[in-house]
Amino acid sequence: MIQRVTLIGAGNLATHLGKAFSKAGIQIVQVYSRTLESAGTLGTILDVPFTNVIHEIDLNVDLIVLSVKDDAIGQILDRADFRQRLIVHTAGSISMNFLGQYSERCGVFYPLQTFSKRREVDFSGIPVCLEANSTEILTELKELAEKISKTVYEINSDDRKILHLAAVFASNFVNHFYDIGARLLEKQGLAFDLLKPLISETAAKVMEMDPRDAQTGPAKRYDETIINKHLKLIDDRPDLRKIYSFVTNSIYQAHKK
Amino acid sequence: MIQRVTLIGAGNLATHLGKAFSKAGIQIVQVYSRTLESAGTLGTILDVPFTNVIHEIDLNVDLIVLSVKDDAIGQILDRADFRQRLIVHTAGSISMNFLGQYSERCGVFYPLQTFSKRREVDFSGIPVCLEANSTEILTELKELAEKISKTVYEINSDDRKILHLAAVFASNFVNHFYDIGARLLEKQGLAFDLLKPLISETAAKVMEMDPRDAQTGPAKRYDETIINKHLKLIDDRPDLRKIYSFVTNSIYQAHKK
Repeated sequence: MIQRVTLIGAGNLATHLGKAFSKAGIQIVQVYSRTLESAGTLGTILDVPFTNVIHEIDLNVDLIVLSVKDDAIGQILDRADFRQRLIVHTAGSISMNFLGQYSERCGVFYPLQTFSKRREVDFSGIPVCLEANSTEILTELKELAEKISKTVYEINSDDRKILHLAAVFASNFVNHFYDIGARLLEKQGLAFDLLKPLISETAAKVMEMDPRDAQTGPAKRYDETIINKHLKLIDDRPDLRKIYSFVTNSIYQAHKK
Repeated sequence: MIQRVTLIGAGNLATHLGKAFSKAGIQIVQVYSRTLESAGTLGTILDVPFTNVIHEIDLNVDLIVLSVKDDAIGQILDRADFRQRLIVHTAGSISMNFLGQYSERCGVFYPLQTFSKRREVDFSGIPVCLEANSTEILTELKELAEKISKTVYEINSDDRKILHLAAVFASNFVNHFYDIGARLLEKQGLAFDLLKPLISETAAKVMEMDPRDAQTGPAKRYDETIINKHLKLIDDRPDLRKIYSFVTNSIYQAHKK
């Protein structure tokens, strides 16, 4: 049973994962981060020791969680001896096998959510996607994941990569479009509040309907009069015009009979 | 006081508006639609007379609501005599003044929401954006709007056009990205359910945070390793690659210091 965990990383995901583990009674033994400041911030939040020195990482634990930027994972793995240790990463787009070079006991612990430090999340509703290089490890990770989430899945590396890509469209890109909306309103002196019921309903609809059936608006019916009016309103923004045109076309292509 | 309304149009918005008016005790006197089938469908739902003959439109009412496709508004106005009648349209991108050519008493009644026929909506939370060509009419429309919604705004034609454009980004384009996510998962044999908690949280975040602060993901930090992996996954979809690249760039540009 996994009871003692070392957390490598102190970003948004590491922060929320550390909090969720603590809350579930899992002991965070130590936090490592590249800078002492960020290690200290998370260490203080979790009330546990912290370090920014790789050779001081406490490896004498049941599980080491690598929750750092993709490019930093290899750098950390190269500089400490993780052999025989159970290590997992939390990245959407890195294969489990990448860890296999560094330890015989490895897996992936990927919570699919958008995390911001300033916002609390309820981990129980977050899908946790697991992968492991043995059924024994999978069982251990599953037991751990079920302590913090009600929705635990086994997802292999290929599937997880597609899931990550889909999440970029359905969350990162979506949020940017909220932002574009907010800036358009701001420039006009209008409050972003006006858009909030629309944003909520757009998300709520696809909880029950297929997004294909939920589509509305001028692009779906290729209403050129409106489309051209909209393009004219952003005459001074070639970047927005490009996005508007490409997405409009993509919607039309997806919906034409 | 507006008590008797003729509804011109039987699309998604007309349907939900008709239901909301009925529920609030406003009498829908008649429904007109270009096809007898759609007029009949909505007429039956509302249990009121319906027609698809323009010259049979009942003009002897307190308010005529034009809720049809933008291009159809002019066609209908050209073919009936609306002079002296109070007429409003429900379109985001058409100026109020367009109606002024047909009647001295006109306005706009624009509920900002995404409507699908099969999905019930609670009108009380929907922003209704009003405009009128006299303060007297504005007062009448406001009184009417407040019977169905708690959030009634006065918004002029220029502001409404920007609002409509912002809504296309924050709702229509957003829904399309849900759809792209759903199709990517479907092709891989994965359930769309996996993305739902992420979609809900992404929307919930911006109820409280500025979307600019809520942004997460590889594009914000221009994580080229992940971006290139994602582009490779959609090697066979030049349309998606274009959208991915443009939106990624747009996010990066918006967030670089």
